[in-house]
Amino acid sequence: MREVEFWFEFGSTYSYPAAMRVEACAAERGVTVLWRAFLLGPIFQKQGWDDSPFNLYAAKGRYMWRDLERVCAAQGIGLRRPSVFPRNGLLAARVASRFAAEDWLPDFVRSIYRANFSEDLDISSSEIVGSCLAKIGQDAGAVLSEAASPNSKDLLRAQTARAVDAGIFGAPSLLVGAELFWGNDRLDDALAWAARSP
Amino acid sequence: MREVEFWFEFGSTYSYPAAMRVEACAAERGVTVLWRAFLLGPIFQKQGWDDSPFNLYAAKGRYMWRDLERVCAAQGIGLRRPSVFPRNGLLAARVASRFAAEDWLPDFVRSIYRANFSEDLDISSSEIVGSCLAKIGQDAGAVLSEAASPNSKDLLRAQTARAVDAGIFGAPSLLVGAELFWGNDRLDDALAWAARSP
Repeated sequence: MREVEFWFEFGSTYSYPAAMRVEACAAERGVTVLWRAFLLGPIFQKQGWDDSPFNLYAAKGRYMWRDLERVCAAQGIGLRRPSVFPRNGLLAARVASRFAAEDWLPDFVRSIYRANFSEDLDISSSEIVGSCLAKIGQDAGAVLSEAASPNSKDLLRAQTARAVDAGIFGAPSLLVGAELFWGNDRLDDALAWAARSP
Repeated sequence: MREVEFWFEFGSTYSYPAAMRVEACAAERGVTVLWRAFLLGPIFQKQGWDDSPFNLYAAKGRYMWRDLERVCAAQGIGLRRPSVFPRNGLLAARVASRFAAEDWLPDFVRSIYRANFSEDLDISSSEIVGSCLAKIGQDAGAVLSEAASPNSKDLLRAQTARAVDAGIFGAPSLLVGAELFWGNDRLDDALAWAARSP
């Protein structure tokens, strides 16, 4: 079974187009996606950043929003610049790490990204995360309650630590074994690498 | 005449594969390359960095060198990790901005990049820059003397200021009118944009 680990953060702009297409692109190559939610905040803090580099470095930020417009237009997905950036994806990431292996997980991930980047909704709130769960037929109360458990919190913390150990410093990132690929721009390269793995 | 401005810095890693292919890729689309040397140092300093971000942020640096191996291998160009990074490209950039419109300029640019990233030579020295000039049939003494003139120094300074004004924050960058594309990964997009410009 050929696999790629897709490491994503719900607040990350370029994770949005990547998350929307990774499953379909992987399927074309016979590759299975392992969904790995993590948090960029603790990683950025270790680099001395208390905010997104796109906010800290103005020219880089201006460029990113324009580039993201081009990328989303080319991919045919909506983009409405979030009125709050970056949004806190902690709760959604707890759901995504706790329920990573569920059939409904990819739909949930895409629903959260759409809410954040296409509908400008506050994905840090349990109301919005709950409505994304309900939309895909899940019991929002039960899922959110489980996501708030100490075990789920530990799980996301451990997963973020694993990201650091694997050399991840930004999102999205893709791992094929120990081979790391960073960015939406490397998604196809990562899948090609996975497809030719032994 | 369809044109793309190719903004490059001789110390920049991803500028290397971009510089080696931009002219051939542009020709395929009927686009003319305008070569724009500039310096990243003053731009990085304004962002609070006194070194390359690839040195300041270790995980990012480790990834970049591995990624660059993959990129150069795919493009079929040599890569020997420079023993000094980033190398100071000031002198070469003065030559490249002063003689930007000469027929021999693209060969000179590629020769400097090859020296830095494939041959691990000290491109900050006038000996190496001079030998790159001699190799392409230029009078090294005359060119280096002109490059050291106050006018040439002003020219590069003004060009770096123009880069900032255009929103450039990294290298390589490509400009089609006011439309900015950042990175070797956006080279094809920039040329496609130029090719369909009115």
